Amino acid sequence: MPYKAPIDDIMFNIEHLSSWAEVTALETYSDITCQDAEAVLDGFGRFCSETIAELTSIGDTTGSKFDGEKVILPDEFKTAYDQFVEMGWQSLPHDASHGGMGLPRALGAAATEILNSSDLSFGLCPLLTDGAVDALMLAGSEDQKALYLENLISGRWTGTMNLTEPQAGSDLGRVRTKAAQNDDGTYAVSGTKIYITYGEHELSENIIHLVLARTPNAPPGPKGLSLFIVPKYLVKDDGTPGERNGVNCISIEHKLGIKASPTAVLEYDNATGFLIGEENHGLQYMFIMMMSARFLVGIQGVAVSERAYQHALAYAKDREQSPPVDRSKKEAVTIAHHPDVRRMLLRMKALVEGGRALSVATAGLLDLAKNGSEEQAATAKPIAEFLVPLVKSFCTERALEVTSLGVQIHGGMGFIEETGVAQFYRDARILPIYEGTTAIQANDLLGRKILRDKGALAKEIMVQIEETETSLKSGSPQAISFANNLERARKAFNDSIVWLVDQAGDDINNVYAGSVPILMLAGNLAVGWQFGKSILAAEAHIAEGKNTAFHAEKIATACFYAQHILVECELEKARITAGADSIYADAFKDFATA
Amino acid sequence: MPYKAPIDDIMFNIEHLSSWAEVTALETYSDITCQDAEAVLDGFGRFCSETIAELTSIGDTTGSKFDGEKVILPDEFKTAYDQFVEMGWQSLPHDASHGGMGLPRALGAAATEILNSSDLSFGLCPLLTDGAVDALMLAGSEDQKALYLENLISGRWTGTMNLTEPQAGSDLGRVRTKAAQNDDGTYAVSGTKIYITYGEHELSENIIHLVLARTPNAPPGPKGLSLFIVPKYLVKDDGTPGERNGVNCISIEHKLGIKASPTAVLEYDNATGFLIGEENHGLQYMFIMMMSARFLVGIQGVAVSERAYQHALAYAKDREQSPPVDRSKKEAVTIAHHPDVRRMLLRMKALVEGGRALSVATAGLLDLAKNGSEEQAATAKPIAEFLVPLVKSFCTERALEVTSLGVQIHGGMGFIEETGVAQFYRDARILPIYEGTTAIQANDLLGRKILRDKGALAKEIMVQIEETETSLKSGSPQAISFANNLERARKAFNDSIVWLVDQAGDDINNVYAGSVPILMLAGNLAVGWQFGKSILAAEAHIAEGKNTAFHAEKIATACFYAQHILVECELEKARITAGADSIYADAFKDFATA
Repeated sequence: MPYKAPIDDIMFNIEHLSSWAEVTALETYSDITCQDAEAVLDGFGRFCSETIAELTSIGDTTGSKFDGEKVILPDEFKTAYDQFVEMGWQSLPHDASHGGMGLPRALGAAATEILNSSDLSFGLCPLLTDGAVDALMLAGSEDQKALYLENLISGRWTGTMNLTEPQAGSDLGRVRTKAAQNDDGTYAVSGTKIYITYGEHELSENIIHLVLARTPNAPPGPKGLSLFIVPKYLVKDDGTPGERNGVNCISIEHKLGIKASPTAVLEYDNATGFLIGEENHGLQYMFIMMMSARFLVGIQGVAVSERAYQHALAYAKDREQSPPVDRSKKEAVTIAHHPDVRRMLLRMKALVEGGRALSVATAGLLDLAKNGSEEQAATAKPIAEFLVPLVKSFCTERALEVTSLGVQIHGGMGFIEETGVAQFYRDARILPIYEGTTAIQANDLLGRKILRDKGALAKEIMVQIEETETSLKSGSPQAISFANNLERARKAFNDSIVWLVDQAGDDINNVYAGSVPILMLAGNLAVGWQFGKSILAAEAHIAEGKNTAFHAEKIATACFYAQHILVECELEKARITAGADSIYADAFKDFATA
Repeated sequence: MPYKAPIDDIMFNIEHLSSWAEVTALETYSDITCQDAEAVLDGFGRFCSETIAELTSIGDTTGSKFDGEKVILPDEFKTAYDQFVEMGWQSLPHDASHGGMGLPRALGAAATEILNSSDLSFGLCPLLTDGAVDALMLAGSEDQKALYLENLISGRWTGTMNLTEPQAGSDLGRVRTKAAQNDDGTYAVSGTKIYITYGEHELSENIIHLVLARTPNAPPGPKGLSLFIVPKYLVKDDGTPGERNGVNCISIEHKLGIKASPTAVLEYDNATGFLIGEENHGLQYMFIMMMSARFLVGIQGVAVSERAYQHALAYAKDREQSPPVDRSKKEAVTIAHHPDVRRMLLRMKALVEGGRALSVATAGLLDLAKNGSEEQAATAKPIAEFLVPLVKSFCTERALEVTSLGVQIHGGMGFIEETGVAQFYRDARILPIYEGTTAIQANDLLGRKILRDKGALAKEIMVQIEETETSLKSGSPQAISFANNLERARKAFNDSIVWLVDQAGDDINNVYAGSVPILMLAGNLAVGWQFGKSILAAEAHIAEGKNTAFHAEKIATACFYAQHILVECELEKARITAGADSIYADAFKDFATA
């Protein structure tokens, strides 16, 4: 199952949508050029194609195994992980201060895509480590940073997030794991955590668990949670792993997909934990890690979609079946000639490129929010935070669609496991669930980012979208047609926002019944906006005679997106403004009797 | 994983949507009452819940195995199949003439749903046998009927369809299997057939393969195919299985789902075959079997959706997580209280009930087409044939959505195989592929049933839908609101039909780019129409004070359908009338270079 990193498209997005000029003008990044970026990604792409993409089928058929004590991944994973660390790829997205490559976040996003296209199961381990690094960077003490960051950034140690417990999934306020302070200032952590991705394995020398737990006198609910570092091996003064800590793997899950990625049940039995920041602020710190992880999981959606698209396109260009419907030939032609196969391929392509555009654009804003001037940060941060749940949910929900289309294009072959595309369909299914389900992302968007400021930020974003429309309207007939579709989508968003803000005072159920529809509408619109900007950039290049084939394809893909996908915004508006009368009809009161 | 047959809803649909009065007035069925029907389905429902639904997990984990000669299913399947035959359930949908129960087709459809909700893998075996019976009934000689039908209808023997070869999937014109006439009038059949569902197994005493093959001087392409009976064991004069025929299983596939259902590669090596009907008319006879099988596969879509819905509803009524968003309680409530979970549950419910309504309505028309007076048949047949691809594709594509929502509602639990709901997601994935992919169904609908008569039949159907709208408009406020949605959907369909018929002369690619969208639009509208009729029936019952809870729920479900799903018709219209400019853009010419 070969994979080739789509460097051309990635670079187009980085150059035109990631606020590249602003970001690279920052002191942190002042030396980086597009050529540098391309060289890095090209090298990483080659490594991933040759080494990681080879793991996909092995990981699926062998899976990770628990022997009662250790979790063993297929040997090929260990070899690949060692190479990944040795070549320094874990450090790619991290600050230079603790050994990171110090590259812009858009490059990190691109690398995450490439790695996860190559293998979602493998990609999860570095992804979680990235989240742990982000959390320690922002909330860890200087001593903690000194003790853990370098080894995490190098990939010699890996990180995990320990939130979920059997009774506490989306509702983290129900977390029961206890942490009682010891005399030496450390904490004794006890409890059971479930669904811990890479919670146990032998790939790395140590595993640094970040654990949500409750101190003895903490208030009930989410405001009584504290965050602890619980290393698998306690770290000695010289910085090397020492004694085994009181955290053990009880079992790993038998899952629909990402079978090589071990999903552990961990038992903490008076494990030694180190408080991060202050007590009872754990959820706030964990949100840093979750924000990072949510963004990266969104990119996983793009990644698996890209992989599925590459397979479907290759098959469609090879498989011959039936003469063309326009009778231009008598013999059977490749199925890529047939209208509905083309429709499916373009749907996949448009969703992949659209998701990539949105994630790269968001990466640029996250960068400005973190590393920019106060003014830059003030502008970029709220928009970036608005976009993160869109990246997470739009890209992962669409990954289900894209991987399903990938199966469909293969016909009967798609259902045969050896073909490999069914695995993408299975692997992708976790993406809209973990790191906060789509409904949780929708609550975040609607509650915190739309209702709280009565739609003010949404309106600011719409002003920017309107500017893109205006520019498009002085372009080619295709650009003008695109602008009209974008305008209709934006108006559907505006009408929906007005309706939601208006209803919020009266009946909150009515409003939240539209939470996922508004999230999907916003994601779709945000992608359409990026495609609008892409058309502007592509037309400028074509006018200069630069790489016209690539840029014409970008414009055509954008047009397909507008005609087939962006039009769904008006549908979502209809669903939102229908309200919750039917959803909360008396006839369904039985739904909630238990 | 318990399952309970939804007898109330099935009976509502049979009573109000299956042309029940007309069908039961036919001489064939004159003695049957609704009470009889309910009694039969109730008995079958109990058998399926107790025996077949217990197989789902066993079949998935054990699967069918090929030992190089025989295909072995889990023991529990053999035991269950023996009981199924002994109790006579295979005979339920078949004519009394050869030992069938002689029940209306709507009952057969209901039984197929119940059986396949219980287990898709198990259900496929009787489903294929049903198809073989239909083909022999219509095209077999009297001798052939006498030799095979009784044993097929009893289920002692099972049937298969042998169409696909490695190079001939959707494009059956490429079939290469040869059949040369022997001196005794039989044929020697040689070639390789793939994807043969229940092509080999030990459940039954004999397997009757219906095989498409090409005689030596046959014209090339689809018009040179003949249909043969090739029994696994040649039948002796006394009607019992005798010598083994020259057909052997080479391997079975390792699939994403329906793992207990063996999908065989069969090698025919001078196997003795018996011509059905005339040479070169094979595809025409096979279409009889395919029409039956397509309809029944559509019902499989409803079936697996119902099963997924029952699981999701049970989980949502049990799992407690977070206080309600309207803060009406401080404690965590069952997730069935939360707006988005309710939205997902209702989407599942509306799609299940809608698919059931459409399939039961189609079953009634198929019955009138086959058993009605000349006048009844002339009216019912074209509409039934129009609806079959809708049942096949709308119900199976939506099954992907419904089973995916079933996983989503379970959150992380949904991704764990032991929960059981991931299996429905995997099992369902074959449904829009086998018995003709969605694109093949769309070609059938658009080419044969819309363009050929320039939309005349579609317009006749719209006249009937408009009558339902008119009736609704003199009903309750809910009925009127529903009628408005139905009217908008019908107009979107009408506009699309006008556009497609108009374009057909100029650019056929333009038209076929909208083939799946028009299929989805038509399916959605047809379901909306059935919900419209359901509202009328339910309101009449409520006015009489009959079972008001059930009928109020039906109306509320219909309203949800109108507000959240029927509104998609206008989206499909936008996609259709956008044409194929972007799909056939020069920029994508590379898609079809191979």
